[in-house]
Parts: sequence; structure tokens; C-alpha cells
Amino acid sequence: MFGLPGDFNLGFLDYVEDNKSIEWVGNCNELNASYAADGYARVKDGSIGVLLTTFGVGELSATNGIAGAFSEHVPVLHIVGVPSTSQQKSKPMLHHTLGDGRFDAYLKAAQQFTISQASLNNKRTAAAEIDRVLTDCVIMARPVYLMLPTDLVHEKIPAKRLQTPLNTQPQENDPEVEAFVLDEIMKLVKQAEEDIIILVDACAVRHGVKEEMRELLQRTHFPVFSAPMGKTAVPETYERYGGMYVGSISRPEVKERVENARLILSVGALKSDFNTGNFTYHIPATKTVELHSDHTRVQFAAYHGIGMKRLLPKLTARLQPLNEGAKLLSVPKFLSPVPQEDNQIISQNWLWPRVAQFFRPKDVIVAETGTSSFGILDVPLPHGAIFVSQILWGSIGWTVGSTLGAALAARERQLGRTILFVGDGSLQLTVQELSVMLRTGVTPIIFVLNNSGYTIERFLHGEQAKYNDITNWKWTSLLETFGGIEGKTSQSYTVRTKDELSKLLDDESFAKADKIQLVELIMEKLDAPNSLKVQAELSGQTNKYISLGLKTA
Amino acid sequence: MFGLPGDFNLGFLDYVEDNKSIEWVGNCNELNASYAADGYARVKDGSIGVLLTTFGVGELSATNGIAGAFSEHVPVLHIVGVPSTSQQKSKPMLHHTLGDGRFDAYLKAAQQFTISQASLNNKRTAAAEIDRVLTDCVIMARPVYLMLPTDLVHEKIPAKRLQTPLNTQPQENDPEVEAFVLDEIMKLVKQAEEDIIILVDACAVRHGVKEEMRELLQRTHFPVFSAPMGKTAVPETYERYGGMYVGSISRPEVKERVENARLILSVGALKSDFNTGNFTYHIPATKTVELHSDHTRVQFAAYHGIGMKRLLPKLTARLQPLNEGAKLLSVPKFLSPVPQEDNQIISQNWLWPRVAQFFRPKDVIVAETGTSSFGILDVPLPHGAIFVSQILWGSIGWTVGSTLGAALAARERQLGRTILFVGDGSLQLTVQELSVMLRTGVTPIIFVLNNSGYTIERFLHGEQAKYNDITNWKWTSLLETFGGIEGKTSQSYTVRTKDELSKLLDDESFAKADKIQLVELIMEKLDAPNSLKVQAELSGQTNKYISLGLKTA
Repeated sequence: MFGLPGDFNLGFLDYVEDNKSIEWVGNCNELNASYAADGYARVKDGSIGVLLTTFGVGELSATNGIAGAFSEHVPVLHIVGVPSTSQQKSKPMLHHTLGDGRFDAYLKAAQQFTISQASLNNKRTAAAEIDRVLTDCVIMARPVYLMLPTDLVHEKIPAKRLQTPLNTQPQENDPEVEAFVLDEIMKLVKQAEEDIIILVDACAVRHGVKEEMRELLQRTHFPVFSAPMGKTAVPETYERYGGMYVGSISRPEVKERVENARLILSVGALKSDFNTGNFTYHIPATKTVELHSDHTRVQFAAYHGIGMKRLLPKLTARLQPLNEGAKLLSVPKFLSPVPQEDNQIISQNWLWPRVAQFFRPKDVIVAETGTSSFGILDVPLPHGAIFVSQILWGSIGWTVGSTLGAALAARERQLGRTILFVGDGSLQLTVQELSVMLRTGVTPIIFVLNNSGYTIERFLHGEQAKYNDITNWKWTSLLETFGGIEGKTSQSYTVRTKDELSKLLDDESFAKADKIQLVELIMEKLDAPNSLKVQAELSGQTNKYISLGLKTA
Repeated sequence: MFGLPGDFNLGFLDYVEDNKSIEWVGNCNELNASYAADGYARVKDGSIGVLLTTFGVGELSATNGIAGAFSEHVPVLHIVGVPSTSQQKSKPMLHHTLGDGRFDAYLKAAQQFTISQASLNNKRTAAAEIDRVLTDCVIMARPVYLMLPTDLVHEKIPAKRLQTPLNTQPQENDPEVEAFVLDEIMKLVKQAEEDIIILVDACAVRHGVKEEMRELLQRTHFPVFSAPMGKTAVPETYERYGGMYVGSISRPEVKERVENARLILSVGALKSDFNTGNFTYHIPATKTVELHSDHTRVQFAAYHGIGMKRLLPKLTARLQPLNEGAKLLSVPKFLSPVPQEDNQIISQNWLWPRVAQFFRPKDVIVAETGTSSFGILDVPLPHGAIFVSQILWGSIGWTVGSTLGAALAARERQLGRTILFVGDGSLQLTVQELSVMLRTGVTPIIFVLNNSGYTIERFLHGEQAKYNDITNWKWTSLLETFGGIEGKTSQSYTVRTKDELSKLLDDESFAKADKIQLVELIMEKLDAPNSLKVQAELSGQTNKYISLGLKTA
């Protein structure tokens, strides 16, 4: 449970602190805490993230983090300690209120960014209300909002209902409609003469069908590709995996292979601008079948209530007989050799393939929105690795809190190392959470790309504008300042050349990550992964900068 | 203008950067930026604070800061760079969206926390819309919300209307009602046989009647007292000023003097829990006249639309003839001698009177919610000093961003030094803004009360609870880590004893504050100003902790 104490949640926190099955992680601020709960939920499969804040001042600081979890389908329970039920009736001018008696203003705001809400007001209905929002959180994979009044916290209610586990599975599809949909899909499969590729995306991970996907792939052997937000939903070492499809930004061989397939089976698509090469998919609906958590789309027809969790196993059974033909379908190899460059500059082109060699199975790899999230896409990650990024919401600074949550989940799941790539500009938004990493004893490796400011924005607009500059910090002093003991609990490095970085990555004592480590990478201000350059060009045009001929990059 | 760049506001930022009359302050994150805009507006009399963020991710991070400005009547213009007018119609799945096409969700949230909003959508109405929200911002002294689409930014419109200044004064009161109200007030004055005291509060400052107040006081000589949120609305050196009235928490002589007066003329009251000693005013409505920005209350009668800005001068004229009698009314002296303690511990009882001797006229003194905001109340501040605190909203961490804004405003107004008192726990929420202070060259003195965690909360509840602990940082390394050059642009100190602190305060090179200075004060974990202890006791009971006999302080 992540969050901060505040006087409306202190009573509840006593029970949390006394509860052996809950680990309370006190964060430095509520935005960081919400990011941590999000990162935890992404890595702790089948679990949710929990955030505890206090009325008004606390909960509102977390708004961006909760909205991001909504946008990206991450299940986060936001518990807010609120004034007592009697105070909510009498509405005194308490601290943390707006001073005008609107005690429901924060709930109204939360309704915009959470899938369901409960304002507990009596002990008889409390348990049912809590179960309702918990179930919604898990099944819809979206944040929910729970108001806990200071007096209700101490009420006792029967524990009986705890013996009945909550239903966390989506309901069965209507058998008649489902059968019809399967027939429709198989008609297209026949028309396509089995020339099918599978495209996996974000919601395959978020809505928990990784296992069903694995079955589908192994039993059919159809070629599979991934959208950026679906990266590592399918192991990138899988022999039938062809890499990233990002519309026009894709590698030529991937673009050609995907767009020339006669049928695309899309699983859990979330077609946002940065997830589709700025909407440059060249896949007509006529040759597309889309599986989603709560509906299915066959060509132009939408079948609401037909969810993929239940549909996938049946589809797999129908497709399995085609596996011999499927095996013959070609798949481009997803490789990313380290380019030879005759200089020592740590370039974006060189960095990502090089660090890819450093990754190990089951590593959790977190990439900040910007050069990191674009650069990492183009390199294959090891078996069992988990990719964590925020490509739709794209809130800079998110990865720092998120890495804390991801690292705690990785420790519980006994995964590999947690490795963060974050830009100097982004780290400044949420930097204090490094101290919570130190306190909780997680040991992520943090690569800070020091390229003198908001480089992604320089490519979007304002290449030399002062507003894209930031103050340069002593990055290697951060861990010590926040409570690290250099050489013992923390270690910081500044790396300026390719050779220095290779030497560090090859150093076993560094690689084993037994303490928190921060690596400042000195990089060029105006260097970016090619995919980002193209994306920025497309996106910049959309945002009407360049086309208006203003002074710009 | 405070804020951060984001791809939906970069086009606008070009104009900002090119505009010689606007100083762009790039902050580390949006919450800190909103705090800075708030602090700036509080110190820059007659001005507003301006915040610029980007769609979704940026603006939502500022929610708590904007809500705080609403709660405390601070005029802040929140400009948000949003998608183009055509994108708002077609609703593509852009980054920074919720992914479900609800492009109005952020506006709906903002409606809860701003007094008026404008979503610009065409060049013909844009200017009028901008003027409308600007006028509301100034006259109502509350935050407003302005959506600036990427395409509209580049539209050209006639400059003609700029020649007509905006009306920033509240409208005239209805003469007939106003005359009636004045008569009603004078009846009470007569009944009270001129035994009147004046009680000044927050809205006297926020709604700009300091000048009218000065006239009232100087022409009538009635005794005047202040509520915590009204501190420094009247110079605390004024001979007819008796100090703080905080209900039961008041000094005995103040409590007695105020509550025994036969008529209380209350100006700009904001009766929140922490501003009234947890609602322990003992002043019956029958002997109260309340002047507010938009209404007047005489005993039980409310007169809507009769605002104090227009009423005060007329009331002053009516009361002036009574000044001879008023001069004879007694006023307790507001003094706070430094107590003699036979130890070297920097106690709360000793600290505040001692630093009071360090203050100079026109200093801007910022106190964080907690031991600081309670401790500072009890000492008189010099002539022209400005007290900045957030007693109603009470968001910890607020002062760090706020101090940046306050210091920039103080520099523009050529006031004295900006001096911050903040606890270790609070500083952790918003610490990165120290780097923006360094970049902008403001030189506040920052006293960090290192008392090992959330001491105010220990008094509210959970004295020894782990959830009130924090990680201890190397406080004196912060400024260097964030870009300071120790001894040149910044200086840090750790102070453990009374003598060490006195020596530092008496050091002229320290006192002249020509560089940013951080002073870590080592203090007792369980020491607090007496007023906080009492407040916490009362508030803790309200929050039903103690009364339920839980383990507690």
C-alpha cells in the first residue's frame, strides 16, 4: 500500500501498520505514490495497486497518476481518508476543504478518472460497497475510488463474507453470439487462405490474457507481432515473433509483412498516436479481426459483450488444425546488432542495442516517455523480461515512482533486476522517490540520460528554445543526498564514452545490482532514436507548428 | 508565468519567450508551479499568478495547487495548452487523453476548483472570453481556467480592445441597501457605547481592502486584532494592534479583551477550524458585524451584494467622529520576549521569539503548515512584513513552491528578504523547486526544522507510529546537488544549539541574504508550539481518534 499519512487517514493507518499482510510504503508525495501503485500493479500480475491519501490536499495531488492508470487500463484502488460521516452532514469549514461547504467536490473530480466510486457512510452497506469497487477494479482493470470516513474506520462488521472469494473473472460470453462470432472469424480465415498474422497490444497484458495468448501461439504457430504498448506480452525471443509494428515507423520488413498479410488478428489493441506511428496503420478493417476485453470486432461489425478472455481459448481450438500451414508462414527476424560507430559518443543508435546485451531474463525494464521509450522499442528483450512504459498517457516523471512500485513487485515475484531509463528533464519532476527506494531496500539500476533538457520536445518543437532547457544537477550526488551510503547502499557513476559504458555493463559487481545504482549517461542534446524523430515530425505537423512556418526545429 | 513545457503549449511558449514583458519560470513539476503562482499572487499586491501547463498530464498534476488557491481566495490564471479545435471535434486517441474520447473530462474536473472557465474555440469570441475569466480572477480573487488550443494560438485578432482597461473593481453597492446597512451598523455601535474592537482576517488581504482598513484604523483608533489568516493585514507594530485572536487558543489577555468587547467589527473573516482554534470563538452573532467581499452580515441579517470594498470608506466616515472615545479603549501589548531556558536545545518555545528578533521590516515570511505555521503566529512581525501561510487548505510541501513565487514577487516589489520555515517531512514533497530558486537567482533563507518526520501528525495521532517517520536526508547537500555552488551561489548550515543559532542569526553576512541559504535546525521529535498541541487535541477529538480510546499520543 502506497501513500502518505494525513490526519483523515491516521486512524486507518493504525490498522494498516498493525496488519502483517500489508506492507505500508510511505512515499514522498502523493503523485509519486500513485505512480508507484500503478507500476506495482503492472508488474504484480493478477494483483492491483493500492494508494492511500488524505482528503483534498492528498488525493488531488494524485489526480494525474490516477488518470494515467485509467488511460492505460491499470487497476489501482485509491483509498481516501475523509471527514467523519457527521462532519460530511454538518459540513464545517475544516482544513483541506474548499471553504464553501462542497464536501463532494473531490468525489466529482474523481468520477472523471475512476471507473467506479464508493462513499462509505454506514457499516451495514460498507462491505458490499468495498467489494463492488474492488471487483470493478480487477475486472475492468481501471482505477476505483473509495472514501473512508474517520469514524467508520473503527466500526466492526461480520467477517463471514470474507470466506466467499470475490468474482474477478469477466462473465461468460452469450454462447449463441459467441458461436456466431467464431463462425464469422473462421469465414475470414478461410478467405485469407490461412495467411494470418497476430498483432498483440496493451490490453492483452492489462486484461490478463497472456496465458490464453501463449496457448494460441503455441498451438497455431501463426506469426505474431507487437504494438509498442504490447511489448513483452509475447516473449521477444519466441521464434515466431517478428517484432514491433508501429505503422509507418515500423522496420520496413515488419511493415511489409504485417500490411501484406491477408488477415490480421488483433488482440487488445489500444490505437493511440504514439502506439501506431501517429495513426499510420495501413490495415483496412475488411481484413481485421479485433479482440477486446469487452467486445469483438469482425471487419466492420462490433459484437458487444463478447470478451477475449472467454473467446480466445475457443478461437485457439478452431485455429489449431491450421498449424501446419501456419508454420510455413514467414516471420522476419527481430534482431538489433550493435552498430559500429567510429567515435566514442554515446549515441541513441548505439546505446539501445548495447544495453540490450546487458539485459537478462526476467529483468523488469522501465522506460520513460521520451528518447527512452522510443529507443528501447527497437531492441528485443530477453525471455520473461517485462517492459513497463506509459505510451498513451505519457506523463513525464512517471517512471521514477513507477520504478519503485515495479521493483517492489519484482522482489515479491522474485523476478530479475529492475532497470530504469529516464531523461534528466523527467527525473526532476519526481526525483525524491529515490529516497523511498533507498528506504525500502529495492536496488534498481537507474540510467539517467543527461542530454540537457526536454529532448523529445526539442524534436516536437522549439529545438533551441530556452523553455526546453533545465537546470543541470549533480546527478551522482542524488542518492547520497537522499540517504544513500555511497559504496554500501548506493553507487553512482558518470559515463561519457562508449568504452566506459561497455566496461561498466560488463562489470559483474555492477550487473548483479545488489545496491541501488545511478548511471549518468552524457549524451548529445539533439540526438534521438530515429523512431522518435519520425513520430515528432508527424505529431508536430498535427499540432500545427511546422505547417504555420513558425521559428522551429 | 510559471509552468512546464508540453507539446500542446510549445507554440504558445514561443510567444511567451519572445515577449519582453513576461518572465517565464520553468518549474520542476506542475504542482510546484501552481504553488509558485499562488505564492507570487499573494505577495504581488493587485496582481495575479499565472500558471501554464499542458493537456491532461500537466494540468492534472496542478489540481491540488489550484484547489488550494480556490480555498484560500488567491487569484491564479491557469492556462492549459490543449489539442487543436479540429482535434477536439474529431477526438483522436492522442497521447495525454483518457483513451475514451472524453476530451472534456479535465475541464469538468477544473470546474470543481476554479471560479470560471473558458474553452477557446474561435478567434471571434476568444478575446471576450479571455477578458471574462481575467476579470473574474481578479474581482473574485479565485483561480480561473483557460483552454488554449494549439491552432488558435497563432490566430491574429484586432488589438483595439486592449486600449480599454479591464474593470477590476467590484461593482458599486446598491445605494439604498448600503445606506440601510450603515444605519443598522451605527445602531449597534450606539448600543455598544463605542466599546468596539475590529477583527481582521484573510479576505481583507485577498480581496484588497488593506488600504481601506488602514484608513479605518487611523481615523478611528479602535483596537484591532487579527485572526491567523489575517496576520500582517494590519502592521503588527501598530500601537492599537493587540495580536492574534484564535478562540480558545488565544493568549488569555487577547481572548478576554476580544470576547468582552460589546461589538466586534469583523473584516474578511474565513472561519476555518485552524483559523478559529477549532471553532472556539466565543462571540455571539448578536454583537457581531461581518464585512465580506460580496455581502455584509449585521447580527443575524445577511445583506447580499453589499461588499466591503465600497462599504468600508463610508463606514470609516461614520465612525471617525467616535475616535476620541476609541483612543481610550485598552489594547493588550503584543510582545513575545525570548524565554530563558537553561539548556541548549532549540525548543519551539525559544525558536520563534528568537527568530522574531532576526526579522526586518518588509521581510516576506513563509511558514509551512505544521509547527512552523503555529509557532510563528505567536510572535509579532516587523512593519511592512508579509506573512504567507496556507492555514485553511493546509497542503504540506506548499511553502517550497510558494516561496519561489513569493521571492520573485518580493524582488519585483523590492521588499525585504524571503524567509521560509519548513519541516523536514514537508520539504520532501516539493524539494526539487530549490533548483528553480537557484536558477532564477532568488536568495531566500530556508530554515528546515529537522524533527524526524511529521510532527504535527504525531500530535494529531500516532505519536510513535512508523507512518509518521520519514527518511532523514543530507539536508545540507540539497542546494549543491540541485546546482548550487557552495559558498558562491548557495550556503548550507546545520545548527544544533541555541548559541549556534543565535551566532548565525547575528552574523551580518548571513543576515544580508545575498545567496540562497539553507539552515538545518536539529529539533526534538516531540516538541511543538503550545497552540499546535491544543489545536491537535481539539482536532484529534473531532476526528474521533482519542475518544475511541485507540492507541495514540
